[in-house]
Amino acid sequence: MTNFLSLADVSDLDALIQSGRDAKASPFANQHLGKNKTIGLIFFNSSLRTRLSTQKAAQNLGLNVMTMNVGQDSWGLEMEEGVFMNGDKAEHVREAAAVIGRYCDIIGIRAFAELKDREKDYKEQVMHQFAKYANVPIVNLESATRHPLQSLADCITIEEAKAQSGIKRPKVVLTWLPHFKPLPQAVANSFSEWMNARANSGDVDFVITHPEGYELAPEFVGNAKVIYNQDEAFEGADFIYGKNWSSYTQYGQVLTQDPSWAVTMDDIRRSNNGKFMHCLPVRRNLKVADEVLDSPHSLVIEQAANREWSAQAVLKEILQGM
Amino acid sequence: MTNFLSLADVSDLDALIQSGRDAKASPFANQHLGKNKTIGLIFFNSSLRTRLSTQKAAQNLGLNVMTMNVGQDSWGLEMEEGVFMNGDKAEHVREAAAVIGRYCDIIGIRAFAELKDREKDYKEQVMHQFAKYANVPIVNLESATRHPLQSLADCITIEEAKAQSGIKRPKVVLTWLPHFKPLPQAVANSFSEWMNARANSGDVDFVITHPEGYELAPEFVGNAKVIYNQDEAFEGADFIYGKNWSSYTQYGQVLTQDPSWAVTMDDIRRSNNGKFMHCLPVRRNLKVADEVLDSPHSLVIEQAANREWSAQAVLKEILQGM
Amino acid sequence: MTNFLSLADVSDLDALIQSGRDAKASPFANQHLGKNKTIGLIFFNSSLRTRLSTQKAAQNLGLNVMTMNVGQDSWGLEMEEGVFMNGDKAEHVREAAAVIGRYCDIIGIRAFAELKDREKDYKEQVMHQFAKYANVPIVNLESATRHPLQSLADCITIEEAKAQSGIKRPKVVLTWLPHFKPLPQAVANSFSEWMNARANSGDVDFVITHPEGYELAPEFVGNAKVIYNQDEAFEGADFIYGKNWSSYTQYGQVLTQDPSWAVTMDDIRRSNNGKFMHCLPVRRNLKVADEVLDSPHSLVIEQAANREWSAQAVLKEILQGM
Repeated sequence: MTNFLSLADVSDLDALIQSGRDAKASPFANQHLGKNKTIGLIFFNSSLRTRLSTQKAAQNLGLNVMTMNVGQDSWGLEMEEGVFMNGDKAEHVREAAAVIGRYCDIIGIRAFAELKDREKDYKEQVMHQFAKYANVPIVNLESATRHPLQSLADCITIEEAKAQSGIKRPKVVLTWLPHFKPLPQAVANSFSEWMNARANSGDVDFVITHPEGYELAPEFVGNAKVIYNQDEAFEGADFIYGKNWSSYTQYGQVLTQDPSWAVTMDDIRRSNNGKFMHCLPVRRNLKVADEVLDSPHSLVIEQAANREWSAQAVLKEILQGM
Repeated sequence: MTNFLSLADVSDLDALIQSGRDAKASPFANQHLGKNKTIGLIFFNSSLRTRLSTQKAAQNLGLNVMTMNVGQDSWGLEMEEGVFMNGDKAEHVREAAAVIGRYCDIIGIRAFAELKDREKDYKEQVMHQFAKYANVPIVNLESATRHPLQSLADCITIEEAKAQSGIKRPKVVLTWLPHFKPLPQAVANSFSEWMNARANSGDVDFVITHPEGYELAPEFVGNAKVIYNQDEAFEGADFIYGKNWSSYTQYGQVLTQDPSWAVTMDDIRRSNNGKFMHCLPVRRNLKVADEVLDSPHSLVIEQAANREWSAQAVLKEILQGM
Repeated sequence: MTNFLSLADVSDLDALIQSGRDAKASPFANQHLGKNKTIGLIFFNSSLRTRLSTQKAAQNLGLNVMTMNVGQDSWGLEMEEGVFMNGDKAEHVREAAAVIGRYCDIIGIRAFAELKDREKDYKEQVMHQFAKYANVPIVNLESATRHPLQSLADCITIEEAKAQSGIKRPKVVLTWLPHFKPLPQAVANSFSEWMNARANSGDVDFVITHPEGYELAPEFVGNAKVIYNQDEAFEGADFIYGKNWSSYTQYGQVLTQDPSWAVTMDDIRRSNNGKFMHCLPVRRNLKVADEVLDSPHSLVIEQAANREWSAQAVLKEILQGM
């Protein structure tokens, strides 16, 4: 693995999921791999789980870690080419990426969508510019349109739950949840991308449900069944994966805050004794009821804990390829 | 030791003080204890000494350290239960604490009093919520009402000075100092709590002096003698411990800024060749005169240096109990 | 070496440059030197290269690293003596430096010029106060008037290029570049100071060019030839070192933004097949054309990469002197 920007960088998904589960069983088994190597974690946006879990995974592998908050520890970076730089960005990504790539053996980048210009967000400029100019492997710590470390953790979590329940091909439902702020589509996109791959290999059945106007980009919906009636979608669901996202078609807009889309125990009862998943942070009761999160149906903590192992699986494969 | 939230978590104070002094003598003697373990230091508020000394102590013990500034590196955390989360807090402590507890073996938390609602501050919600949901030991890096790592460093400092002076049962005076901003009672509370314990075991005599209206909460005053006349209180003092705090009774108010309460060399001369202590940061001349801080009477630097050893004693005991 | 505040702290410049080149060849050869030692990196201002390269160099030497952003992780520090501290600074450097010096074996400090009061900036109060009160070696991570780690990296870069080109005594031209914001003179001062030393030892010829009114302080100009005509200055140049700075004589003022001072390929063609250098960050096209930065004439990335080795050479010498 050179970069880890999206599912396309994964050659063997089953093996990567298994590698994450192996890391969870023996966190320090590959501590020699990172010796005298350094990962730089560059944050254009806030982070809790990604910051801590990636740092932890790196340390498990013996890597040194350097973190930097862009615009706080340092200054803004210009991403466009050919610009006459007399604005608020003091440095160009060509220099920043190349220089950080001289200090670091691997670079992790978090850079959210701005939700103003769909074409701009969907061309994933920050990731691609870093990948182009850094000359070292780039790890996506959540980009404008994807959050693949989250999706890998989600796959690990689902496999663990499958092993426990014995259900061979569970029904996984991604549901939109209400929110008053416009949020990126990244987690929903990425989860769809990875679940479609899991559906193709016969590991899950995958359904997406959301109000009209919240259709994800076609390349992410893929072969998933889209159902606009949430109750209907939840019937027989083994996993309910909740997430809010703003509209893709009316880009970045909040079209509805309909509270009936929040997940409650009624929804769980409608499912096949389903498990609830969410990438966190989650606004309690706005998006999902306390009673769900505090019940044994919730997998959200295990899912977040698995972020450490998804990061470790990815970093291990990158280090082995060096 | 499971948590270190207050003096109540200390089973043998003499042994803990001695452990700090041992760490000072041999900082790296227990480096194996922290191997492959990680401490997370979570700051809701600014920090200099606590940030650096706890990090250093952890590294002396072989621990990995991850620090995070809440609201800067990440986002605000909701502490109340049952809330419909449509405000400015993006994540609930139930998730945040549980998740951080999966990445970290020990969590240190700094969360100051807001000084708006006494009942709220004094129920120490942040510490208790983290202790409830993190499932790993919690270390208080200064909470709304206490700063026990400081108090332990203060005890170490006093014992060192006692060993030098030969005074068996020194008179220790906590004095209020003037300030124009409302500050928490945490350091004063904690120092009183710990000095009362030292007085009970016959190691010190403990006196508190402050203007009327600055009485600390009764549970912290304990058996201490309270004298409203500072000159009288300082007579025969071996240690003058200065600190400003806002009113507890008229909660969070600045009732006076009377400059005569600042400590000068006249006050030192009134004492028994007394030593001056302060937890730092200290505003020079507003609270204590340059001539005191720059004299051999000042212990403030040694006291701050001892923060490393108080943290190391606590972390060592927690690691040994794992 | 005790402190590294300026060139005056360097006893053997040739040896220090060679030590940097040795570190580049064998980064981990001296990892034992930093064992159980800690460097604190204190930033009063933003940083990208210095933050990451110094951290990396320290880790190469086996040092533990603690970073702190003043005014963000902690609070503002008072630098003046004898102040009645009732303003916005919560702590005095006397305490802060002494305390950090108890937690750290070496302290790196970044503190830019404020560009309001020339005398104040040029007395380098922050560096000198830390050097006075910390009781441990201080490393200048860019101060009000100097950036010696940059200058050392520049020397390493020039020596590498000389080794490649075979030119024994190259002509080095420092040129002012246009900018709309007032920037400190630190990098230009420091580069002049170090190049004058290299000129004295016969290693380079050194020329400075800038518009009238941008004369550097005489102690930094030294024996350098100052030419106000940029085209004339560039004739036969082997190295063109670009940098913007605000006026020293009309302190902190932007006297001109004349775009003809930006470096283009025409300037390179005017030189002796010259190399372009800049400390970064650089605003593309405002200060130097894309065509230069993206050509083989540019050394800016190698120069930034050499920051790691300049820091490592300095830290190694400090550690060896302990």
